[in-house]
Formats: sequence, C-alpha cells, structure tokens
Amino acid sequence: MLALSIAKGRARVVQGHPRPEARSDESRVAVDLCGVCATDLALLGGYMGFEGVPGHEFVGHALDGPLAGQRVVGDINAGCGTCGPCRAGDSRHCPDRTVLGILGRGGAMAEVLRLPHANLVPVPDSVSDERAVFAEPLAAALAVLDSGALDHAPQRAAVVGDGRLGLLCAWALSTRVARVELFGRHPGRELLLGGGVHHLGAALAPTTTAREPYELVVEASGRPELLDAALGLLAPRGTLVLKTTAAGPVRFDAARLVVQELRLLGSRCGRLADALAVLEREAPKVERLIEARYPLSRATEALADAGRGGRLKVLVEMPGAPAP
Amino acid sequence: MLALSIAKGRARVVQGHPRPEARSDESRVAVDLCGVCATDLALLGGYMGFEGVPGHEFVGHALDGPLAGQRVVGDINAGCGTCGPCRAGDSRHCPDRTVLGILGRGGAMAEVLRLPHANLVPVPDSVSDERAVFAEPLAAALAVLDSGALDHAPQRAAVVGDGRLGLLCAWALSTRVARVELFGRHPGRELLLGGGVHHLGAALAPTTTAREPYELVVEASGRPELLDAALGLLAPRGTLVLKTTAAGPVRFDAARLVVQELRLLGSRCGRLADALAVLEREAPKVERLIEARYPLSRATEALADAGRGGRLKVLVEMPGAPAP
Repeated sequence: MLALSIAKGRARVVQGHPRPEARSDESRVAVDLCGVCATDLALLGGYMGFEGVPGHEFVGHALDGPLAGQRVVGDINAGCGTCGPCRAGDSRHCPDRTVLGILGRGGAMAEVLRLPHANLVPVPDSVSDERAVFAEPLAAALAVLDSGALDHAPQRAAVVGDGRLGLLCAWALSTRVARVELFGRHPGRELLLGGGVHHLGAALAPTTTAREPYELVVEASGRPELLDAALGLLAPRGTLVLKTTAAGPVRFDAARLVVQELRLLGSRCGRLADALAVLEREAPKVERLIEARYPLSRATEALADAGRGGRLKVLVEMPGAPAP
Repeated sequence: MLALSIAKGRARVVQGHPRPEARSDESRVAVDLCGVCATDLALLGGYMGFEGVPGHEFVGHALDGPLAGQRVVGDINAGCGTCGPCRAGDSRHCPDRTVLGILGRGGAMAEVLRLPHANLVPVPDSVSDERAVFAEPLAAALAVLDSGALDHAPQRAAVVGDGRLGLLCAWALSTRVARVELFGRHPGRELLLGGGVHHLGAALAPTTTAREPYELVVEASGRPELLDAALGLLAPRGTLVLKTTAAGPVRFDAARLVVQELRLLGSRCGRLADALAVLEREAPKVERLIEARYPLSRATEALADAGRGGRLKVLVEMPGAPAP
C-alpha cells in the first residue's frame, strides 16, 4: 500500500509498504483523512526515536471488526489489557502500550491502519470528515478541563500559543471560564473557532509584571523555552497546565514554583467520545483551521508545509477517500 | 546588640548592631533560640541577594505589644495588609511582603527581632523551647498535607531527602498515608521522629524502574538536580510536591510530566498554630534532631557546622536565653 514512512530522520512516501496485519482483537481501518500534528514533526526530528508510519489524527472507515463499514475515529493508545491502568480503563498509561504513529505502532499516514476494536469510536453522520479529523486534538484540548485545572474555579485564564492546540485549548476553556486571554503571534485567529477568546498579541514576557496575574494558564505554544514566561503570568497558588512536549530537558525557575506555591499539571490525550459530542454541535468551527490538503502521494510536502511557521492545520488525503 | 550579619557573601558576629525599631503595629521579641535552616546557608551563598541578620526559625518572648512577656513563635511573612492576598489572610503571598531574615527584614540570629503583632503566636507552657523552635520547619512540613497532595488519597508515598525537612515531611505524611518510604543517605534517621517511616537508603535513581511507583513523592533533599529522579518514582497521574528551593534554573524532563500527566506542586510555609498543636502532643520527637548548640557569639561556627554534610539541626542560643 501507499504510506509515508520515517526512517533515519527522513520522511518519504513508499509505494509498496506492507499492509498492517490485524490481530484477532484488532480492526483494520481504511484511512480517509489524516491531520499533521506538531508531534509528527517532532518525530521526524528524532523525538521518541520513532521509525515507521507517523500520523495519529485520523478519520476513516472500518474494514472489518465490530464496526465494519462504519466511519470511525480511534483512541491512539493501545494498552496491554491486563495491567493495572488498563484494567482501570486507562490504557494511555499502560507501561507496555503502543501509540498509533508514535510508539511501536504504524500510524495513519497510510491507506490502512490497525487498532484494537475497543479503540474505535463511530462518528455520527452529522459530523463531517473535515470535523471528525479534529476529534483527537480537540479531545486533547478538552482534557485540560479534566486535569484539575478548574479545581479552584478560576475566573480568568490565559493560553500561551495561538497555534492549532492553543486555539483549541482556548476555545475549550471559554466554555467554562468567564474570561480567556490568548498570547501568540497571530491576532485575529481567536475569531476562527468562536468562544469569545481575547487575543493579547505576542508580547508575553516583557509585560508580565505589569499585567494582572492569572489563576490558570495553559502552555500550548510548542516552545518549551516559554515555560518560565508562562509561570510568570500566574498569581500565587496559580495553576499552569503544560501541553507542550519537549524532546529534551527543559530549564525552569523551580524556586518560583515553590515560593509562589504554584501547580504545574501535565496534560496529554483526552476522550474521543467527548470530542465527538462537542463536534456534533456547531461550535467550535474546527474546519476553519484547515489551511491545506495534500494527497498521500505528496505527504512529504504536507509535513514541510505544516512545519512552516504560523501554519494551522494541514491534512493528508488518502487515495480512496471521498472527495470533499 | 549582638547579632550575626551577612554582607558580601560573608557572615560575621557584630557587637554593636542597632536594635530593631518596631512600628506601631509591630512587637519586639527577645530571641531565645534560633535554628539554622538550609535557607540561611543559601542566603550566605547569595540566594535572594540578602544582606543583614538571617534566621527565621525562632522561639523567644515578646518584649512589648499584645503578647508582652509571653513566649512566642512567629509567622515569618509580613504582608502589606491591604492587597488582595493580605485581605484574604494570606500574607505569605503579598507581593510587597517582607520575610523575617530572608527578604527586607532582619532575622532571628540577634538578641531582638521585630514582627507584626499579628504574626506572633503564643507557645503553650507544655511545649519546651527546644520543641517550639521547630514550629516553623514543622509547619512547612505539615503544609504538604494541605497542598492538594492528598486529593487522590494516596496509599503509598515517598520522601526524597532524609535531612531536617525530609524527616519532618516523612513524619507528617505518616499521619495520613498508610506507607511512607524515605530515600536518603542516612538509614536509621527515620527512627528519630517516630511515625513508622521506612528508610530505603540512598539508591534513588538506579532502582527507579524496578521499584513499584508511588502515587505521591515529596522532594525535600535540597538538591534540585534530583528533580528528575524524584519524578521517575511516580506512577502515571502521580503527584510530586517540591519543597526544595533552588537558587538558579533547574533542568527537568518536561515531556515525562506531560506524557505521564503528572502534577508538580510547589509548597513553602505552613501555619504555626497547626505546628504548635502537633508539638503539644508527644510525637514527633523533634528535639532529637538537635545535634549542636552554639552561643550567638559563635554563630558563624553554627552556620559552618550546619553546612557540613549530613548534619541535622544546629541551634544558636541568645545571651539572655534560659539555660536548657
């Protein structure tokens, strides 16, 4: 089959890539659309030492298994099924997990992928492919709401980063926090998704001391070096949710964390069912984030495009996918 | 008066140091005993750019004010009294606060100190000076219990560091968590305070992967470079309470925080009244941590002694203090 494959720090489209063979507890899925994520670009740069087919934001249709013939999205974490976290329904923290297109399992930038039956979630008819392909990143943004970040009922929150994930996080927060302010280089983008988010521009660090501090800040810039500036936005006892994953060690002002008694919460994936329920409604208008579409045969260009500064969402379309 | 003073990175005992002049809302306190804290040693090393009289762990007797003549300990944070945190009773997060012997306010390694009336707490007769002088560090240890660390009702916890603060934190946790394990270089010390803490020795990092992970870890080693090893002890969604204050930036594995969805909580001071209530009972036997006492005239030796590896608590006695 046709697939994009990463090896030795290079991505290339492979014509005769072997089709994945599903185990008895797995379904095969014909991929229709796949979004390019910052993690894919990090993998290309060496993160996780990944080699193989990347891609984990997808919508497709099941070729076999319990949902055969249905449109599906899929939870990207495939657990062992027997450890403590798996038995508690939390396969994303299984120590032996594989992760679609990230860890030990080929991903969605291919004609066909495989995932455990239990990972697949049917997509309601009312949700278009162009919206469903955002289920995974939207779920990751909605996960901020479950991270403990709202324990102290903040009235104001800030999001650092107005890229793909930052916009989704700001929108998610706007459903629960009275005022959400967004820092980034692209004023105007906050209007794409709706939600009444206020864009404050890129002047993050210099204005920190003058600005009224926040009870809650979400760091979603993809730039680990902004961690201290994000911490500097917080009021004492404030909470920072960290969404940015860094490939190497990050330096930060640990004394500030202690002296101000701040909370730093790591947050990763969310629940696809929650995201689909949101996508069944009109808001957020995630499809407005799509800036380009490439056929799988030109997926290397899609990666290069997504890696250019300031791009929102770039999609890869599979050969058999229905036309938009 | 006699006082220890830090200037230009050197500590020396000064004979004619000016007595502090109390404002109308402040009391003067004749210090009886003062404990040497790791923070004092950090100040000597340049932390906070502090110059003046250090010392913030003390017991003394009020010379004037509402508690004149009574034995007292004191909250070290003196707020402005008018800002939001102060009005909410949280002067330790007042942006304009002074901190006894740490920030903008001379400390307790002197015959007399001054603090706002409201900061002083009378010491019950049943609590000896040798126990009362631990009120401040014990309060800091008890603060771990209020930090949100117990939100998920952990059954097992670890403390990294078996120095003064680590032992107090381990004891505090042992009152609320079924099993508390202690990492450090001095097996046997866990017996000093009681509480049924289990000492696992110093083999922290190498055994991390083999060991069953913890839901809660407290980092109290005073060694910021152990942060990653401490994070490595955690189960997914686990909580690390950071008590160690570092003078410079700290490097850590931020990706682990995100991928494992960990919580990192900064924790500093606690409530003296809580500590005194604990000290009225028999446990913990904090006075067993005292390893040496020096007269104020030899306070420089006290600092040097406390700075030697492996020392527990070193005290400084003031000239007018009652004999033990």
